[in-house]
Amino acid sequence: MKHWINELKSQLGDCVSTAPDVLQAHAGDKWHAAALPQAVVLAECTEHVAAAMKFAVQHNIPVTARGAGVGYVGGCVPVKGGIVISVARMQRIIEVNAADGVAVVEAGVLTADLQEACLKQGWFYPPDPASRKESSIGGNIATNAGGPRCLKYGVTRAYVLGLQVVLADGSVLNCGGRTHKNKQGFDLVGLFCGSEGMLGIITQATLRIIPAPQARMALHASFPQFALAAAAVQNILQGGHLPAAMEITDAFTLSAARNHLGPGIFPTDAQGHIIVEIDGREDAVNAELTDIEEILKQTGASQVVTARTETEVEAIWRLRREFSYSLKATGLTKLNEDIVIPRSALVKLVEFCAAMQQETGIPVACFGHSGDGNIHTNIMVLKDEEGKDIRPPADALVHKLFDWVLAHGGSITGEHGIGLAKAPWFHQAVGAEAIAVHKALKAALDPQGLLNPGKMGL
Amino acid sequence: MKHWINELKSQLGDCVSTAPDVLQAHAGDKWHAAALPQAVVLAECTEHVAAAMKFAVQHNIPVTARGAGVGYVGGCVPVKGGIVISVARMQRIIEVNAADGVAVVEAGVLTADLQEACLKQGWFYPPDPASRKESSIGGNIATNAGGPRCLKYGVTRAYVLGLQVVLADGSVLNCGGRTHKNKQGFDLVGLFCGSEGMLGIITQATLRIIPAPQARMALHASFPQFALAAAAVQNILQGGHLPAAMEITDAFTLSAARNHLGPGIFPTDAQGHIIVEIDGREDAVNAELTDIEEILKQTGASQVVTARTETEVEAIWRLRREFSYSLKATGLTKLNEDIVIPRSALVKLVEFCAAMQQETGIPVACFGHSGDGNIHTNIMVLKDEEGKDIRPPADALVHKLFDWVLAHGGSITGEHGIGLAKAPWFHQAVGAEAIAVHKALKAALDPQGLLNPGKMGL
Repeated sequence: MKHWINELKSQLGDCVSTAPDVLQAHAGDKWHAAALPQAVVLAECTEHVAAAMKFAVQHNIPVTARGAGVGYVGGCVPVKGGIVISVARMQRIIEVNAADGVAVVEAGVLTADLQEACLKQGWFYPPDPASRKESSIGGNIATNAGGPRCLKYGVTRAYVLGLQVVLADGSVLNCGGRTHKNKQGFDLVGLFCGSEGMLGIITQATLRIIPAPQARMALHASFPQFALAAAAVQNILQGGHLPAAMEITDAFTLSAARNHLGPGIFPTDAQGHIIVEIDGREDAVNAELTDIEEILKQTGASQVVTARTETEVEAIWRLRREFSYSLKATGLTKLNEDIVIPRSALVKLVEFCAAMQQETGIPVACFGHSGDGNIHTNIMVLKDEEGKDIRPPADALVHKLFDWVLAHGGSITGEHGIGLAKAPWFHQAVGAEAIAVHKALKAALDPQGLLNPGKMGL
Repeated sequence: MKHWINELKSQLGDCVSTAPDVLQAHAGDKWHAAALPQAVVLAECTEHVAAAMKFAVQHNIPVTARGAGVGYVGGCVPVKGGIVISVARMQRIIEVNAADGVAVVEAGVLTADLQEACLKQGWFYPPDPASRKESSIGGNIATNAGGPRCLKYGVTRAYVLGLQVVLADGSVLNCGGRTHKNKQGFDLVGLFCGSEGMLGIITQATLRIIPAPQARMALHASFPQFALAAAAVQNILQGGHLPAAMEITDAFTLSAARNHLGPGIFPTDAQGHIIVEIDGREDAVNAELTDIEEILKQTGASQVVTARTETEVEAIWRLRREFSYSLKATGLTKLNEDIVIPRSALVKLVEFCAAMQQETGIPVACFGHSGDGNIHTNIMVLKDEEGKDIRPPADALVHKLFDWVLAHGGSITGEHGIGLAKAPWFHQAVGAEAIAVHKALKAALDPQGLLNPGKMGL
């Protein structure tokens, strides 16, 4: 083994590391699983990635690609050891070109950095995963990342025009391109989006950017029943509005937020809560906000707070982030499942979760992107007398939740992907035919099975 | 051969036809190539398609899937004979569900019928290929159809949540689903979108629909130079506007339109023309139209005509359709190439076309979706003294155009696909690595090579 590492170092030089702290830093992501690679390639350019991949093919060594390493499903854990190829050093924003409506970036660029570079020119890269300040574009593409604004703007895939990808044989594929439409053959760009590093390693992307909306405004509203909050989501859409984002929160989360933030922010009887953000021309957004406020009042909101300045809007999103902190402040471990359901099933989901909680005593907190039915469902792991997590019943509840979601036309993951964490449910989720197609595609593009092995249960 | 046809008929009954007029009607699309199939399966349900495919696999018979048969690149021409499977009879709109924001349709549903069904509920299916009244959703998906409104709303892919696909072995794959986000494994839905019937046969789709915009308004403007029209496109976007559509027209097309429609519609000195459509809340659209009018005047428009009512807007789009008729009225055959260029290269493209025209005497007319650089470039075939088309120099010009487009970061097709028509340029357009990936994917999903053989040059 040592033999090949020396050879890799002699070929790639300083960008190869076997330092224990570097190996450790590349062993896992935000999920609990971890495994040490034998070497890490800290690639500085596509050529490094291609050279490392060619080397791996020759020596039949597993390769796990890594962006910023902030995924939630163990997607970049090198479970079979081998080489981790990190693109984290590839941070060049090569171009933000308003005249063409494109940005060209290396895979390691942080999403927030790209957004900022675009905004400086009055342009906009819409995908906004919550992790945007720490996640990379390459990781966003590999997981087809979402975020609150997907309701209006769509997920990452909708903004990827072209990709540079190092294939499993070390060759470099350029697919798609710089044009906003492209029907040249199969949708290779789409195939690599969301492929979780299992079909190739993304090194560069050409992204679609759009004119930045002139203004954004928001409001948040509390309801005496969760069902009314869910009804408000439907009434806004039925009213002909397509907000940038619509977030919903259940009673458990609100109660945790009240404990964490103190009284006065939400009415004491609030059992459901929504945040609505709209954007566009300033006058239009102003008028639309008033229309939506009216819809919310008519739907039974007990409190509506509008935000017409950037500062006020940011305050609402800070509140949204506090929901997550409030759950953490309970001291309990939370199993955050990014399930998606058809939008009409929102109330049913929350009722099901409440019933599960009643039955098992395990708290379940739901909040998330109600507009597209992508509800982060947090199963709170209770502790034993010694303060240790009692995992088995919580894990059983995750099982039950996934069964319910799939039985109701839902998806077990809307944003995080399958990786290791959701691999046990993958077959049940997509069916035997889809598994067969996955295996055929994987064998076609990675015949030696070297790319991110052990993920999706493939 | 007769043997297998009788067997197919005994298995599938009345939906199999070998009547000469039926074979003839399934021999081609809007492109010039045609080839007779040996049998046509007029499928009425997914089971018919699956049974026919299973039969074809057993007997090693080529299968060409067909939607409404109105493509422009010979994509559904059964060049190797065999069976044409038509989904044209599968016209059920199974569901338009506003609460979930989805429509479920069979593949043969005409795009305009779906749009109408959605609008009846106040909802909107945005993709709008010019052929929407005669093209099917299945065909739209197989070619990932575009249209003028893609600038704001994106192409067909952005609206496909789930697909039912009959695979090459006759098994039925359900991929994606009913949820607006779905990160369950690879993007199989995306892979089948735009696969031109070569990887599977789409029989049913679950589509994303959005609240219908309250109002749409438009304007059209003439410019004394084409470059000013192109500058107007950039200035509108730089002004923070994202119109639903922005169409541009060159001097040659305008001149043909003046000859066809008579004087008075465009200023006599108009060398460039744009149409802008915006949609949204009524007040907002009204105000935005005024802003854009101002931008156009500042950019040097010699005439701006606004359309604030539905009737006026329709009149502008009728004008747009007249451009195509005006070119036809020249009596010349037009080779309509749906090339795409980076948006900033608009002026360069038109200058290149004018130079080609000057050099060869062959007229070249450009008009199309300027917002995304998708310019329909029409090479007008001159006639000899006997009134016959002189094709070779026109064909040579197409070659030259594609060379130029590819050298300038463009794509040889933005909407129509590769099919037969663009297969000779496919390799040059995407490169050796992409061809290898196409072949690997094709072999993985269709090992016998039965699905739509002979297309894309694969």
